[in-house]
Amino acid sequence: MIEYNRDAHDIYRQSFAIIRAEAKLDRLPADLEALAVRVIHSCGMPDIVEDLVFSEGAGTAGREALESGAPILCDSRMVAEGITRARLPAENAVICTLQDPSVPELAKQLGNTRTAAALELWRPHLAGSIVVVGNAPTALFRLFEMLDAGAPKPALILGFPVGFVGAAESKEALAADSRGVPFVTVRGRRGGSAMAAAAVNALGRDH
Amino acid sequence: MIEYNRDAHDIYRQSFAIIRAEAKLDRLPADLEALAVRVIHSCGMPDIVEDLVFSEGAGTAGREALESGAPILCDSRMVAEGITRARLPAENAVICTLQDPSVPELAKQLGNTRTAAALELWRPHLAGSIVVVGNAPTALFRLFEMLDAGAPKPALILGFPVGFVGAAESKEALAADSRGVPFVTVRGRRGGSAMAAAAVNALGRDH
Repeated sequence: MIEYNRDAHDIYRQSFAIIRAEAKLDRLPADLEALAVRVIHSCGMPDIVEDLVFSEGAGTAGREALESGAPILCDSRMVAEGITRARLPAENAVICTLQDPSVPELAKQLGNTRTAAALELWRPHLAGSIVVVGNAPTALFRLFEMLDAGAPKPALILGFPVGFVGAAESKEALAADSRGVPFVTVRGRRGGSAMAAAAVNALGRDH
Repeated sequence: MIEYNRDAHDIYRQSFAIIRAEAKLDRLPADLEALAVRVIHSCGMPDIVEDLVFSEGAGTAGREALESGAPILCDSRMVAEGITRARLPAENAVICTLQDPSVPELAKQLGNTRTAAALELWRPHLAGSIVVVGNAPTALFRLFEMLDAGAPKPALILGFPVGFVGAAESKEALAADSRGVPFVTVRGRRGGSAMAAAAVNALGRDH
């Protein structure tokens, strides 16, 4: 018999204890501590906390939006799959428009990626929503363009695109000017759908 | 107008060029180079390549299995969502049994996590499959137990669980004794569903 921990509850408890012992959480406001813990848990890297950038009150804004039933707009199916439905306080809609059949043609018309084009279909849901970008920098850049052109404002932007072309730049742009929208992001190349989904899950309810 | 790269094809091309310039790929066998590039692409960390551990011929074994129609057994829905179906050479089945209604009861019976229990439902598909673990160490440990008890062997194990309790240990155990099954894994706490899905995608076809 192989010796290993088979108790999911105890694995979570131990994991969070290790994270709290190792990560520098004291630089964070109280309303983002759980978010940082879950983001670290999703990637195995306590030092990611040092790259978190956020607006004051972003955690509270996200929690209040979820409680009021805000939809969650995801740039990728992986992000949507990573959101634990049982943690959402108001059976919040989890929306990913990337697979909509109109998106490839929209992308051609816009001269942009499919991920960016899929944001056109977010418009009816955008006001007061939680926007979660866990994959594509072009989604964040396109969101800025839509907001600059007068699109309704989300309640919170969780900006976690990952990679080598545009990811760091799009997140710096978010940190520099979030168009008045509360935000949480992570500087640099690191990010991804697991971190993005973990950030949403942290704003939900404990089981 | 915000200046950013809107061309998905060019973003991929540039990303892969940056990765090839920065990552130490020369320690890898030729059949794992594309896998390393895509794993790096999924997490934004060129140094992850230094933690890759693998058996000789693992990339070739995985490609051949996919070409022969091997099913892909995933420990989480996020991994399954991250697999690009258009890259699969034989319309390979992508299977995740975690949401099966029998799993909670199976977990109680086994005294193990739901993710580990879900592997019971892999049994009919296990022979010659690609096993992809992107989330739970208990899935890898449970797989070893099943193999030790005589379960049919997969063609390849992609071991990328992430986190603080059991992740590093389960991957060390895989590297130390993969039960004769070809494998690719990443030492340490890092891992996750995006890396795991990227590894599968790298073994598929280019568009």
